[in-house]
Amino acid sequence: MDASVELNAAYARLAARFERIAILGETEAMLGWDAAAIMPPGGAAARGDQLATLAGIAHGLLIDPAVAADLEAASAEADALGSDWERTNLALMRHEHARATALPTDLVEAEARANSACEKVWREARETADFALVAPYLRTVLALVRERAAALSDRLGLTPYDALMDLYQPGIGAADVEPIFEGYAAFLAATLPRVEERQRRAPAPIRLDGRFPAEAQEALCRELASRAGLDFAHARLDRSAHPFCGGTQTDLRITMRYDESDPAQAMLAALHETGHALYEFNLPGAFARQPVGRSAGMAVHESQSLILEMQAGRSDPYLGWLSTQLVRSFRGADEAGPAWAPSNLARLWRRVERGFIRVDADEMTYPAHIILRFELERALVAGDLQVADLPGAWAEGMQRLLGIAPPDDRLGCLQDIHWFEGMFGYFPAYTLGAMAAAQLMEAARAQLPELDRALARGDLVPLTAWLREKVHAQGSRLGFNELLLAVTGRKLDPRAFEAHLLARYLPG
Amino acid sequence: MDASVELNAAYARLAARFERIAILGETEAMLGWDAAAIMPPGGAAARGDQLATLAGIAHGLLIDPAVAADLEAASAEADALGSDWERTNLALMRHEHARATALPTDLVEAEARANSACEKVWREARETADFALVAPYLRTVLALVRERAAALSDRLGLTPYDALMDLYQPGIGAADVEPIFEGYAAFLAATLPRVEERQRRAPAPIRLDGRFPAEAQEALCRELASRAGLDFAHARLDRSAHPFCGGTQTDLRITMRYDESDPAQAMLAALHETGHALYEFNLPGAFARQPVGRSAGMAVHESQSLILEMQAGRSDPYLGWLSTQLVRSFRGADEAGPAWAPSNLARLWRRVERGFIRVDADEMTYPAHIILRFELERALVAGDLQVADLPGAWAEGMQRLLGIAPPDDRLGCLQDIHWFEGMFGYFPAYTLGAMAAAQLMEAARAQLPELDRALARGDLVPLTAWLREKVHAQGSRLGFNELLLAVTGRKLDPRAFEAHLLARYLPG
Repeated sequence: MDASVELNAAYARLAARFERIAILGETEAMLGWDAAAIMPPGGAAARGDQLATLAGIAHGLLIDPAVAADLEAASAEADALGSDWERTNLALMRHEHARATALPTDLVEAEARANSACEKVWREARETADFALVAPYLRTVLALVRERAAALSDRLGLTPYDALMDLYQPGIGAADVEPIFEGYAAFLAATLPRVEERQRRAPAPIRLDGRFPAEAQEALCRELASRAGLDFAHARLDRSAHPFCGGTQTDLRITMRYDESDPAQAMLAALHETGHALYEFNLPGAFARQPVGRSAGMAVHESQSLILEMQAGRSDPYLGWLSTQLVRSFRGADEAGPAWAPSNLARLWRRVERGFIRVDADEMTYPAHIILRFELERALVAGDLQVADLPGAWAEGMQRLLGIAPPDDRLGCLQDIHWFEGMFGYFPAYTLGAMAAAQLMEAARAQLPELDRALARGDLVPLTAWLREKVHAQGSRLGFNELLLAVTGRKLDPRAFEAHLLARYLPG
Repeated sequence: MDASVELNAAYARLAARFERIAILGETEAMLGWDAAAIMPPGGAAARGDQLATLAGIAHGLLIDPAVAADLEAASAEADALGSDWERTNLALMRHEHARATALPTDLVEAEARANSACEKVWREARETADFALVAPYLRTVLALVRERAAALSDRLGLTPYDALMDLYQPGIGAADVEPIFEGYAAFLAATLPRVEERQRRAPAPIRLDGRFPAEAQEALCRELASRAGLDFAHARLDRSAHPFCGGTQTDLRITMRYDESDPAQAMLAALHETGHALYEFNLPGAFARQPVGRSAGMAVHESQSLILEMQAGRSDPYLGWLSTQLVRSFRGADEAGPAWAPSNLARLWRRVERGFIRVDADEMTYPAHIILRFELERALVAGDLQVADLPGAWAEGMQRLLGIAPPDDRLGCLQDIHWFEGMFGYFPAYTLGAMAAAQLMEAARAQLPELDRALARGDLVPLTAWLREKVHAQGSRLGFNELLLAVTGRKLDPRAFEAHLLARYLPG
């Protein structure tokens, strides 16, 4: 923080406390990464104790009675705070304190137990496509989630479902999402058959044949990430069962999985995780470890991964460059056939297909999976849908949105972990992020005339430098829509995403 | 702890608090391992904050006024505690609390700053063999160490130097060490020339030629560790600049360094670190995270690494087995020449040589390096030796003990980091550990008639299972000498070590 800014004493105490809480959060992040990426299995029990202890200490610091007193004192003198940044920081502290103190300890503990029990049974239920096995556990989880939503609703002045959403993407509620999702469902119903028809007439994509050694894939992922601006003095690239980006602002830990029969997944995942990593790395250093120095929410975070993976990474100029890299890494130039041509990569990696599984979905049908989950979880939280009726409602929704119904619940309502570990209200962030990515890319194209030329060199730095200034360095000073308004001139506008899809899948 | 044991309420509160402190210690251990082994350099600053915060929270828990009150209450009812284990646990809590509260916060902080500054300058001074550069920093460090020693001396009722030693090996003081070291110096003066003479008459050792790929060395290290009983469901083997064993009881992290021109260092270091790891892993689970459940001190710890590295690992039967493993890992049986014979490995890896560098020393001359440091650090702490006179005193001591004097201070008093980061009183533990290892090995041989046959199969499990029962599972219920007395029938007796050296280096 600027030393010249005159801060009131209560604010300074709060800032010191939130810094301490953030440092404990960093230790949790590092130990969480270690557990997911490299910990031997025998360390799991002790690691659970370690993470619970750290979380408990951080929670204790947050709900300490001194915080309420300091928040009151600091707010009374908020006008004397140096800038908008400090005032927003104080508001975010209040909000976080309100969330933390709204919940009785016994509810938090009951949720931890119920979620952990349910998640374990879910693994077996998914394996055997046996929804009835996990239904009683999900019922308990949901009852506690509804209790939490009610408590948060009272404290925050939001509807119960919005109070849940607020944890993941503050400031966005169901009323914001509903018309956007309704509009997209109509767009999809009209557009999807046309795209399928066009794909049928185009040449069939040719699979890349051969073996793609993990070491060579890893080297190429590293190259892609570096050319997006990731500095490996502040990052590691490791392996884990599921790719993710963990760690802390100055020590980012990306993990990948390599399928030696298909390099596509790793390349695109590397771009995705690099987008998350750069967002964290470029957050405003002057407000590091303060609430306002954090990312602006999960939808904004997802926009930063998807703008690299979906917008830039699957663009024609980037695929042109990537094609030569793939040939260089895995083939001699002479041995590369038509499968390696950019046009075939585009047909392979930009294929639209109705499917049952969200995480395998293309960018056009993905929102349908999200819209379904949004409808169902809202109804579950409202009490309008019973757990026993979930499989039927799922099948009905899939039929309505994508015209297909899953043959079993493994391909249906058992596929995602979220609800079974008590996570309700998260799903909309995926699609809000995808739409925001399209809107940001549209603005970047308008402001960076050289962008396509850079993409054709595999150089993502002009794009990520622009994102750094416009998005990353803003921390959470601005909310989701405020940020888009500041950068693109308008709030979230699904037309940018639709225009992107039409240009990519129905050109000419 | 046995649930049937009736514990008093104050003791139960203390046990819960020390468990919490231990869990925080585990998080520090994991993050410390990560920093030394795999952290990208850009993470260092944040990691420093994280470790300082965790240490501060743990220290706060330890010096909390409630602890003093609970210690008093629990001690008043100590007779009602279930067993010796609980009573010793309570005594160790008292001791740790006394150490922590003896030191004023400003002294602790001044030490942290001075040690960190001195250690940085030391790196440059060692590089350039320039003692004068670091002397003023060492003077400051020493002044603060003396202040700490005085404060601890008052509180613990020990001499100042013993109060420093007590941190590393509780219950052992200079008066215990002095006669042992004097006796060993006389033994060495008489024996070393005879060993050198015998070596001169024996065939010269032949270096193992060729390239030893790090991957193959790592696989062999893993094999050695597994055959010593290390369970990789609870351990990892990684690489770092200096081999060490970090992590926690159920999640041990061994790191190694591989010299591709010489496999000896890695093989023997693997045994050494496995010895440390097994000790931690086998500590009494019923008292995990309690003071009495910890290792019995650094000298005991070193005895567990050295009994594998020096006693078992360099024994004739084990070298016989290792020879065949080396040939299998790095050579076809047909290509292996006389260099790979067990007798040559023995000449290579059991060679006695007067040298300047402690960490390169053989087991016979190693204690001379320790005796020198013990004499000098005692004099420094007592105020009988000035920092400016250290290089001269060092040269004099090396001449007296080993008949050689270092050509510069890089090979003399600048070689070890310990003093330059404020660590005084640690060195004796190395030689006490080596002597204890010989005494334990003597007892193991007497109690395990099949031991040599197992060693000849590379199987260290009979030995480590015996150590598990006799040493590891005892935690710190017994002090250093009490433990040796219980296991071997006598307190530390340097004759076992001398007998071992005579048998190995002057047989027949």
